[in-house]
Amino acid sequence: MVTEIEAKVMQAKKASIVLASVDTDTKNAALEAMAKTLDENRRFVLEANRKDIEAAEKLKRKGELSQALVDRLKVSDSKITGMIDGILDVVKLNDPVGETINTLELDADLELYQVSSPIGLIGVIFEARPDVVPQVMALCLKSGNATTFKGGSEALNSNRAIFDLLVEAAESVEGMPKGAFQLMETREEVNDILAMDAYIDLLIPRGSNDFVKYIQNNTRISVLGHADGICHVYIDDDADLTKAYDVTLDSKIQYPAVCNAMETLLVNENVAEKFLPKMAQLFSESSVEMRCDHASYSILEQIDFLEKVVRATEEDWKTEYNDLIVSIKIVENMEEAIEHINSYGSHHTDVIITENKAKRKIFTGLVDSSSVMINASSRFADGFRYGKGAEVGISTNKIHARGPVGMEGLMIYKYILVGNGEKVADYAGDDARKFTHKVMDKKVSDVL
Amino acid sequence: MVTEIEAKVMQAKKASIVLASVDTDTKNAALEAMAKTLDENRRFVLEANRKDIEAAEKLKRKGELSQALVDRLKVSDSKITGMIDGILDVVKLNDPVGETINTLELDADLELYQVSSPIGLIGVIFEARPDVVPQVMALCLKSGNATTFKGGSEALNSNRAIFDLLVEAAESVEGMPKGAFQLMETREEVNDILAMDAYIDLLIPRGSNDFVKYIQNNTRISVLGHADGICHVYIDDDADLTKAYDVTLDSKIQYPAVCNAMETLLVNENVAEKFLPKMAQLFSESSVEMRCDHASYSILEQIDFLEKVVRATEEDWKTEYNDLIVSIKIVENMEEAIEHINSYGSHHTDVIITENKAKRKIFTGLVDSSSVMINASSRFADGFRYGKGAEVGISTNKIHARGPVGMEGLMIYKYILVGNGEKVADYAGDDARKFTHKVMDKKVSDVL
Repeated sequence: MVTEIEAKVMQAKKASIVLASVDTDTKNAALEAMAKTLDENRRFVLEANRKDIEAAEKLKRKGELSQALVDRLKVSDSKITGMIDGILDVVKLNDPVGETINTLELDADLELYQVSSPIGLIGVIFEARPDVVPQVMALCLKSGNATTFKGGSEALNSNRAIFDLLVEAAESVEGMPKGAFQLMETREEVNDILAMDAYIDLLIPRGSNDFVKYIQNNTRISVLGHADGICHVYIDDDADLTKAYDVTLDSKIQYPAVCNAMETLLVNENVAEKFLPKMAQLFSESSVEMRCDHASYSILEQIDFLEKVVRATEEDWKTEYNDLIVSIKIVENMEEAIEHINSYGSHHTDVIITENKAKRKIFTGLVDSSSVMINASSRFADGFRYGKGAEVGISTNKIHARGPVGMEGLMIYKYILVGNGEKVADYAGDDARKFTHKVMDKKVSDVL
Repeated sequence: MVTEIEAKVMQAKKASIVLASVDTDTKNAALEAMAKTLDENRRFVLEANRKDIEAAEKLKRKGELSQALVDRLKVSDSKITGMIDGILDVVKLNDPVGETINTLELDADLELYQVSSPIGLIGVIFEARPDVVPQVMALCLKSGNATTFKGGSEALNSNRAIFDLLVEAAESVEGMPKGAFQLMETREEVNDILAMDAYIDLLIPRGSNDFVKYIQNNTRISVLGHADGICHVYIDDDADLTKAYDVTLDSKIQYPAVCNAMETLLVNENVAEKFLPKMAQLFSESSVEMRCDHASYSILEQIDFLEKVVRATEEDWKTEYNDLIVSIKIVENMEEAIEHINSYGSHHTDVIITENKAKRKIFTGLVDSSSVMINASSRFADGFRYGKGAEVGISTNKIHARGPVGMEGLMIYKYILVGNGEKVADYAGDDARKFTHKVMDKKVSDVL
């Protein structure tokens, strides 16, 4: 017996084969139709969203839902404009499918092309935000990937309204396959999706740390994303302290609720007495609570005016506050800082402030994180700032894609060997023909 | 309580950080020392192997082990020479660590470098063959990856002897970290390794299909490899039949026991009457058993001289024979062939024989396999033939690495942002500074 959810996933997988071969003009026409329908049906989307908001308000009054969640759920006219702009931005991005990555002549008349291709079927699982559907669907469509969406039950009506509009528009374009995009209903469980490793090639979770962790721990499908963002700034004894104050403060307070904000400040003992008092004052002026190790506490407790300076516990080094709190530790040297970062960090984004060129090289070499910043804020680790146009997520994985991930994270490649009747037997044994293995400039579009 | 296996894995993980930064000369010196020690201690290795062979012969006499396994276990003087040559080949390969993949100016004085880096800790799990240790250790060392090895109990003494020699030689080179390579003892269970997803970044299994399948199904660590190799050759009605005979026969008989050999032959109905009788004769001369669908059987049963022509069952389309057996099916058109390949194949390597350029493009676009061959044998899908120097394995994964995988499958990247005290706050809100996002030619070695 094929369940309803299996049927949907299988249909998307089947359509993924066709979608992988759809040409750029057709995909762009589909994206433009999606943008157009959202613009023409704003009222329909807002009406559906109103139902979700009403239900959410009721739950909030019962104390079962937070105001923050209600806010994230809310779709406004300007948010719809944002969705439309986001889709039209993807039209402008280069089509990543079918690019020739490498061409190698194996022998005269035997040419090997490595060509970029879509991964296949992407499973997106997200919490409340209804803007995930247009954003991710646009990126997946442009990169030729079929997609199944599973949203939170709170956004049921909004997701359904947006999804139905977008799919109807995309599939109305000639040459687009039917069924490549599927929205799972609420009664279909997340766990059923996590078990579909025979069909889903990659999972992208969008939500809280606990949500991502749950998904990572309960599926054999590869998961693109990160659970924690425990980022560090290390102030070296060769630091320019003006840069140190600027970058440290920005890394903490520019947007404390996000994964690339600093959680722990590490200070070289040789500059701690000089650096920390003014830094603490800056933190204090921005209402940042400081959780200090013994040595940094000894320095800061002498300062009268400071509030919010407390002692750190072991737990603090492992904690992502996502809030106006920073843990502070004094280290003997850069090596101790690196050791601390690799042990307690989440391999996301870590910063060194130093003018010493040799130390920059060692720090970037030994810190095992997806982004390492020299004299720049941890908050720069982001798909838009990294010039990717749009972001699928930030990955702390060690395979496939790492750091801020754009459409390239939705791509793999295939090898295409173009021959003329060649047999391996001729290249084996005594008198074997030799491979030429000559790198060529040719593109696959020159021969196919 | 840390178990012995956890202690080893944690030690390797720790050493992986240092190994990632070791320079090319040091790594090459370690490889040369490994080759030298194997050459100087041939007798020691052969003696250890003799113990394994004696134990295996005993088990064979009891019927608990096959002759094939005893053969694979056997290390000869010429096999040691092969191991040495293999290690020295890796010396010649370019160091894949620290290459600048992309450089982007985000703003004046704010430059983003995407730099290749090792994955970290690779777990290798293999069956009997003792030559896996030198081969994989050489590739991992050159690519800066720490490695844990878990071999089959039959090769216990051989693996231990080879491993100890190699590690002693590698660690004797100044600048090489200790503990980056670990050999697990037999009593340490495979399942314990499969559970170490907190430390091991990638698993590479080397062994039978069932062995690989077991590993894929019992770990959350990413697995690089493939279980099945069900490869197809499709003879189009626009085929040059001379090429068709050559490529089909080579794909089946050049080495039938391997994953990239053809298992199913698909023939367009318009050429079946012309093509199949002679093809069957060629198969017959090479003792290939033919398992035919109704239509192909109807053609071949009229030919008196043919032996070994039987009717195929549904099971045949899903079977990797690894033997002198081929299943044959007549299809109405290329679309049916593609549908069959995507449904029953293993996304490994599939072939079309056609002179029709439009069909080549459609076939390579729609066949969802890691290698697609046009008028060339499926047997070309191999790391050496694809010019990779050495092969980690052939992957049917859809993320990270696909097809024959060389050292590039052991690499990821990190982002290094080189700034001058920049804050994100300056690039946000009203009057935000604009990113320049200008692609640059600079290499990370120019600044670090």
